[in-house]
Amino acid sequence: MDISAVNALPYEEFEKIFGNVVEKCPIVAAAVWSQCPFKSLTALEDAIFEFIDTLPESGKEGILRCHPDLAGRDLQMGTLTQESREEQSRAGLDALESAERTRMAQLNEEYKARFGFPFVICARMNDKANILRQLSERCQSERAAERARAVDEVKKICHLRLQGLVRTDAPNKL
Amino acid sequence: MDISAVNALPYEEFEKIFGNVVEKCPIVAAAVWSQCPFKSLTALEDAIFEFIDTLPESGKEGILRCHPDLAGRDLQMGTLTQESREEQSRAGLDALESAERTRMAQLNEEYKARFGFPFVICARMNDKANILRQLSERCQSERAAERARAVDEVKKICHLRLQGLVRTDAPNKL
Repeated sequence: MDISAVNALPYEEFEKIFGNVVEKCPIVAAAVWSQCPFKSLTALEDAIFEFIDTLPESGKEGILRCHPDLAGRDLQMGTLTQESREEQSRAGLDALESAERTRMAQLNEEYKARFGFPFVICARMNDKANILRQLSERCQSERAAERARAVDEVKKICHLRLQGLVRTDAPNKL
Repeated sequence: MDISAVNALPYEEFEKIFGNVVEKCPIVAAAVWSQCPFKSLTALEDAIFEFIDTLPESGKEGILRCHPDLAGRDLQMGTLTQESREEQSRAGLDALESAERTRMAQLNEEYKARFGFPFVICARMNDKANILRQLSERCQSERAAERARAVDEVKKICHLRLQGLVRTDAPNKL
């Protein structure tokens, strides 16, 4: 699908396709549809990032809280969204050794207890060793800095999900 | 569950219980969890309404676009959320006569074409005749006024969903 096809979608279809580019936050795609038509995929992405940036800090924390734990209960129970399942799987998080899984669970709980939201990282840009290392390091962060860092990771995840949905070789001449 | 029990929930459980008090917008409950503990159910509701009010107009339209059509495809396909199914059913929208269903579908399309979001009304406060009449009337509204009216309906729906989840006879002494 190119951006012209995106622009031709009724919002219900737009929402079905883009509703999970920010995990479990269909309001984001639904909100930016107000700005349709988009000149390019970049314009759509910019609109999404701008919407996220305009949210109050509680809203940004809300986005983070809609994310599943990495290698957590949703992965084990099979209740991840399709996008998260694929991303966690590619990073090797569905094939952790027992000690790694225990360590990940402990650090996830430590992180959540400290910040009140789950650890979010773009799994497709990291392998399991790197994820464990960053989780351990970020448990020591300061809350506001960590929230900003986590929102940056949400944007990286969104960027890659968008890249998987829209061809970038056919910008629309508006 | 009383408000003390609500305040004792980890955010994952809070989110499971309250994630759909605003239809398909789990970010709303996830955001207001930042303000936990709540003095009362009213305080929780106020936090939710305030979060909605602080959203940019595009975000409010986003909330509206996360709502299903009344007596629409999701009802026919069985893909409504549990809350919406019960609400539409109580209002008699799952038992429309053929002519009523056709009329409702036509007006829904007319409304969406005019405003770019679906017709939202608190079905539990209306019967099918009243819903059809208001849908017909509101198709003639001005866009900004209609958006505000629809957001008010979102809040009525949220209020009743909250009432169904939390006992109000046991305010928490904070």
